[in-house]
Amino acid sequence: MKDIFDYFAAQRDRHVAELCTFLSIPSVSTRSEHKGDVARAATWVASSLERAGLEDVVINPTKGHPCVTGHTPHVAGAPTVLVYGHYDVQPPEPLELWKSPAFAPEIRQGRIYARGAADDKGQVFLHLKVLEAYKAVRGGCPINVKVLIEGEEEIGSPNLVPFVKANKKLLACDAVIVSDTHMLGVNTPSITVGLRGLAALQMTVRAAKSDLHSGTFGGGVANPLQVLAEILVGCKDPKSGKIKIPGFYDQVRKLGAADKKALALVPHDDAAWLKSTGAPALFGEAGFGTLARIGARPTFEINGMWGGYTGEGVKTVLPSEAHAKISMRLVPDQDPREIVKLAKAHIEAIAPDHVKVDVRIDKNMGSPSFVDPNFPAMAAAARAVERVFKKAPAFTREGGSIPIVADFERVLGRPTVLLGFGLPDDGLHAPNEKFDLRMFDKGVRTLACLIDELAAAQR
Amino acid sequence: MKDIFDYFAAQRDRHVAELCTFLSIPSVSTRSEHKGDVARAATWVASSLERAGLEDVVINPTKGHPCVTGHTPHVAGAPTVLVYGHYDVQPPEPLELWKSPAFAPEIRQGRIYARGAADDKGQVFLHLKVLEAYKAVRGGCPINVKVLIEGEEEIGSPNLVPFVKANKKLLACDAVIVSDTHMLGVNTPSITVGLRGLAALQMTVRAAKSDLHSGTFGGGVANPLQVLAEILVGCKDPKSGKIKIPGFYDQVRKLGAADKKALALVPHDDAAWLKSTGAPALFGEAGFGTLARIGARPTFEINGMWGGYTGEGVKTVLPSEAHAKISMRLVPDQDPREIVKLAKAHIEAIAPDHVKVDVRIDKNMGSPSFVDPNFPAMAAAARAVERVFKKAPAFTREGGSIPIVADFERVLGRPTVLLGFGLPDDGLHAPNEKFDLRMFDKGVRTLACLIDELAAAQR
Repeated sequence: MKDIFDYFAAQRDRHVAELCTFLSIPSVSTRSEHKGDVARAATWVASSLERAGLEDVVINPTKGHPCVTGHTPHVAGAPTVLVYGHYDVQPPEPLELWKSPAFAPEIRQGRIYARGAADDKGQVFLHLKVLEAYKAVRGGCPINVKVLIEGEEEIGSPNLVPFVKANKKLLACDAVIVSDTHMLGVNTPSITVGLRGLAALQMTVRAAKSDLHSGTFGGGVANPLQVLAEILVGCKDPKSGKIKIPGFYDQVRKLGAADKKALALVPHDDAAWLKSTGAPALFGEAGFGTLARIGARPTFEINGMWGGYTGEGVKTVLPSEAHAKISMRLVPDQDPREIVKLAKAHIEAIAPDHVKVDVRIDKNMGSPSFVDPNFPAMAAAARAVERVFKKAPAFTREGGSIPIVADFERVLGRPTVLLGFGLPDDGLHAPNEKFDLRMFDKGVRTLACLIDELAAAQR
Repeated sequence: MKDIFDYFAAQRDRHVAELCTFLSIPSVSTRSEHKGDVARAATWVASSLERAGLEDVVINPTKGHPCVTGHTPHVAGAPTVLVYGHYDVQPPEPLELWKSPAFAPEIRQGRIYARGAADDKGQVFLHLKVLEAYKAVRGGCPINVKVLIEGEEEIGSPNLVPFVKANKKLLACDAVIVSDTHMLGVNTPSITVGLRGLAALQMTVRAAKSDLHSGTFGGGVANPLQVLAEILVGCKDPKSGKIKIPGFYDQVRKLGAADKKALALVPHDDAAWLKSTGAPALFGEAGFGTLARIGARPTFEINGMWGGYTGEGVKTVLPSEAHAKISMRLVPDQDPREIVKLAKAHIEAIAPDHVKVDVRIDKNMGSPSFVDPNFPAMAAAARAVERVFKKAPAFTREGGSIPIVADFERVLGRPTVLLGFGLPDDGLHAPNEKFDLRMFDKGVRTLACLIDELAAAQR
């Protein structure tokens, strides 16, 4: 791979400058005032793909923002991979916390700072440059690479599954490759094999028809905030951290010996991890270590809770309503549709008769996923990582959710290799998001090696 | 009393017009922009007192709004009462819910609508007109009446206790009379014998140093909202409604046979009361009926609770902080200073090690009070009520708090007769506050009879 690696070294400055151009487009998908910028980013991606020699490059319109597709010239008998990524970004707020403007990329101490640097423009860019390198150095890509770069990931990809369903043939592949995750460290390579799913609901507890005077009425009717607290405690045991929703754990796949071994191989230091959170002590499901708790076990978290008087000083009100937003991270083989139904039924069952409870299930949900490390494309990725990092990757479970992975599995019938080059402290969705240029360099080389490994596996 | 009652009838139109003038002054004590209006209301009260023949009428400056004092010409050997009330009012907001402007009094269907109509300008006004009537009809008041009308009741009377302490001799009396409560109905007279005390605190639960991604970190450290719920359930039993703070009930005076008999005599219909709240069912401390629960038993109520994401949609955040505002209504002989210390200690004791908890005690607190219905001035009030309403009053316990009652007991050593003429639906602190003119008419007559009864008791 010396020829390709030399190309990356020679073109490094131009590549970084190009990435800065890409990052300077404020393609914030959630804001209608940025619709033009999002379209501009799509055009930028399409042009780059064409320059890298891809064919049939199309900016596909959707009901929302477009997705860009294209493919390398067909190589008969070679395997086919689908590279998925997104060119849209999170809003940059709070602006005042950025050291340099979110859409004026700045390089400081070998890191490029900008919104989208790691999530996901910077990582999409790696793929573009690998394809460019194969064309420039070798005259073309030795395998079939299809790309699908969307513009709505940060708003939940509302139009992606319909697009994939309508274009199954166009997107048919042996495996999906996604670079939208992180490794454990610059010198601690890892590949994500597990993603948690997500289901969410909002609960409202009501008692009196309006806020009441806590002196005149207090003691005679229920306080919805108190009952909300009771229901929440009825959903999760304070001591064991176990979720008390009947049936919640029924479909959870038990960690086998191989899973436990893989987890044990992941470098992790509880003390350092705890310190990074600032919490006074660890807390989680009894019987599991931190890595299992945040990656391989489901959760029930209150994301927000409110009711009554929240201003300054004292207001002696007996509130009429209390609210909580709940989300649950799920693991294989939990079905988010099933789990959220169980949660709703449990909440309704334990709510006492002296209140009315209303549970609204959020439409958006994501299935958990797990990719067998022995799957061929995964094994090829592991070899590619080892060639560049000089170390075998750990197989990690990401606590977050990338619902599209389960969707690809369902619609295209193929697993996804989550080969990302971010770092844990990249500050995704936060001010001063960055991408480490050491990971940039290792990223292009690893992805180039992955194509080489996939081509070799076929031979 | 025919002479006095005839005077009230003859002067009725002028009196109502004068009350409208008083009510049109926006004496909102909590708003600095109304400081001039509050002073204007004090001057209005002072002028009325002088016209009613009171002597030594003084507008006493304080660190905040002034209080007005004065007394009827001394009658040797006659008993002395101190009439306390307040001329300041709550803010009128939300303005859009008023049918007629809050400070443009309007009479509709025999009710006068304005901010302060019942709380407490309208009721202070009754006393002014009774003193005026005795002077006009009889040449003077047969007993010694001192008045103390303050302008800071709606902001917690911060300067009243220091004033009372500094003027013990000026305010010395046999009993205090306060008209700032309500009766059960126009034809269901009652006198308030019990008031609950009040103590409040604010609690903050913290875990991580900043909000975290619920996917990446969820399951590994505590969720402060969940722990807040656990602590709140640890303070009050979901089934029995009993407060679980050790020592909380130790000083609660048990209801004796006479207390229970008095409570049983209070007209009350659980179904109608429940309907007025709109709650689906009654709920309160096991072993007690509604009237005891809201009047004679202490409470622990969450007035407000908040934390995490409370906007639209889903945000998968693991919040770093959770907050709750708690207030407790107390009954004799609970000491608010002691109770709030017990609450703080209990919360700190049950908070688990995986969070940090901070409990802030609110400076303002009020002691509970109870006046023996057999106390002479109370007995005189009961006879006065019966003369006008043709029915003996019920002795009720008000669930709310008027801390100054306990303060009068402590500083002046005298009990307070809570003889108020509001009605339960007057809408205190709410839009469309009103005072029923039937209660206005019964009020002046009852208070005139009270003076007569007190004078007679002495003879």
